[in-house]
Amino acid sequence: MAQRIYLISTGGTIEKVYSETTGTVKNVDFKLDRYLQSLRLPDLEIDAVRLMNKDSLEMTDADRDLVLATVRAKLVGIPAPFVITHGTDTMVETGLHLKANLSDLPAPIILTGAMTPLGFERSDGLQNLTESLIAARILQPGVWLVMHNEVFPIDRVRKDRERAVFVSLDGTGPGAANS
Amino acid sequence: MAQRIYLISTGGTIEKVYSETTGTVKNVDFKLDRYLQSLRLPDLEIDAVRLMNKDSLEMTDADRDLVLATVRAKLVGIPAPFVITHGTDTMVETGLHLKANLSDLPAPIILTGAMTPLGFERSDGLQNLTESLIAARILQPGVWLVMHNEVFPIDRVRKDRERAVFVSLDGTGPGAANS
Amino acid sequence: MAQRIYLISTGGTIEKVYSETTGTVKNVDFKLDRYLQSLRLPDLEIDAVRLMNKDSLEMTDADRDLVLATVRAKLVGIPAPFVITHGTDTMVETGLHLKANLSDLPAPIILTGAMTPLGFERSDGLQNLTESLIAARILQPGVWLVMHNEVFPIDRVRKDRERAVFVSLDGTGPGAANS
Amino acid sequence: MAQRIYLISTGGTIEKVYSETTGTVKNVDFKLDRYLQSLRLPDLEIDAVRLMNKDSLEMTDADRDLVLATVRAKLVGIPAPFVITHGTDTMVETGLHLKANLSDLPAPIILTGAMTPLGFERSDGLQNLTESLIAARILQPGVWLVMHNEVFPIDRVRKDRERAVFVSLDGTGPGAANS
Repeated sequence: MAQRIYLISTGGTIEKVYSETTGTVKNVDFKLDRYLQSLRLPDLEIDAVRLMNKDSLEMTDADRDLVLATVRAKLVGIPAPFVITHGTDTMVETGLHLKANLSDLPAPIILTGAMTPLGFERSDGLQNLTESLIAARILQPGVWLVMHNEVFPIDRVRKDRERAVFVSLDGTGPGAANS
Repeated sequence: MAQRIYLISTGGTIEKVYSETTGTVKNVDFKLDRYLQSLRLPDLEIDAVRLMNKDSLEMTDADRDLVLATVRAKLVGIPAPFVITHGTDTMVETGLHLKANLSDLPAPIILTGAMTPLGFERSDGLQNLTESLIAARILQPGVWLVMHNEVFPIDRVRKDRERAVFVSLDGTGPGAANS
Repeated sequence: MAQRIYLISTGGTIEKVYSETTGTVKNVDFKLDRYLQSLRLPDLEIDAVRLMNKDSLEMTDADRDLVLATVRAKLVGIPAPFVITHGTDTMVETGLHLKANLSDLPAPIILTGAMTPLGFERSDGLQNLTESLIAARILQPGVWLVMHNEVFPIDRVRKDRERAVFVSLDGTGPGAANS
Repeated sequence: MAQRIYLISTGGTIEKVYSETTGTVKNVDFKLDRYLQSLRLPDLEIDAVRLMNKDSLEMTDADRDLVLATVRAKLVGIPAPFVITHGTDTMVETGLHLKANLSDLPAPIILTGAMTPLGFERSDGLQNLTESLIAARILQPGVWLVMHNEVFPIDRVRKDRERAVFVSLDGTGPGAANS
């Protein structure tokens, strides 16, 4: 039986698209699916929830509660790992909200996103998605942020906006799980 | 300080290139580097060893001994995870050789490869490389095979040639680490 | 009313695919369509004929007669330009056969192909296809070979196998139409 | 001797890049070079002039005069075709300015650009660049707009903003040169 995973998309840069009429980059369409199709996932059963499609700077407390409620509802059913795609600016905030309100998790919850939208030159989107989907099979229960070949416990990470990377809070580098 | 990883390349389909003069696909050039450059690895220090560039059906016992000796030599120095790129046909054989001859591993050893060469349409090469590089940071010490969003202990996996996938020996699906 | 074009595919490297079971590159599936979809052709009506899917070294006199008969049949109907995708090794031979047996052409016939299959890293296939489709709208009636930003009258060109390029017979460079 | 071509870049969507710090798409870097490297141009000698990098809505009369002066200066030297990359919003205006002020052209001048930046998913940039570079070898002297497999005399074309295409002024479709 294939491994089940819950994939909750909330928007963020990873799903932004370029508009030819306005020349801007916005959250309009869900586009993870197109890129998931380029991956080989013979043993994965993805239960996808398209929750919202927002720039994470526009996410409200109500939005974060909705993410939490969605996770809770799935956990009542069949326990399985979660990958949540999210804008990077408030990804940690949402992750901390989940951590503060969920206990005895049976599986890991992974937040991920991208600095450049999926499908744009030099995008990190597919890398982060690929990493999160396999980390979901390996990591212990807990709330994690996975991007750029790094795995951070959600309460030990912050975004370094100028360098467009996430860094460990304790300044000693990434909180890789086995180091 | 960045996470160190040893990346040992031995050839296999993942590094095959198309020859315009012969119209065939062969192991000639090392090409992992070009694809690694498309990944964001801000906290990874890759110590790359280009050991050989062979179709894995042509690998000899001496070749497998050389892989083993290379791993041993690195372990004597600075312990760190290994990712070994390898042809899929005898990847398990090489992995079992490592497992049988190494004990008290301080870090995981991951074998990976591809069904279609890196950079060819529908290639699984970059996916497998991305997965292996992050699995190397998370998995427990041991010898693993990582491909297609699956993680197998090396002694519980075989290649299903007709379907071009790896499957669990016990027939119950992939040996995902946390399931 | 959109510009009509006849697109006759005969195989050749441009349509070769990689087989995961054999590790070889062969003419099996027609795949031009997938790549044509990546082009914007708002004013083009493509009448596609999948005639055969052969390595051009295996094309026989009967095959070349079939290409000729197909062109003739279309010309009896609605006159329009032709793009013929073809293996590079005998592309000139087929082109000369068309030129020798067709007179008073109402539109150009363009032969094109690729040195590396469509969708493989560093492929020239989409470039050559793109060039041929626009050259078909501009060139005068006649039989032409279009590849690598060059336009050759079919009776003034040969393949330079070692360099994997086409060169002008007269040694003075490509027979670009307006130079 | 290779065919010479003058490639004048003025900016526009084709050269826009995504900024990770602002989340916007802007004219900052010249990036045609990176994409030209993916094309095979064995007989082309590109004389590239990076004139400016502007959204075409911000181009002034002085800017258009500078484009004209640049063309004139090159024509005084070695006559050769021109490809001018330009934002689509005022591409026709610049083209008409060139046509009104240049006479007895020895070679074609082609304006091109893109609806979506080079390297973004579904971009038409590389297609338009490829088309323009070969059209430059075939078209008669004059000022032309080349995009999306269409060739328009500059005084018979306008942009249809809603459909993100260029259309013929006379409403009868594209002004393809040989139809």
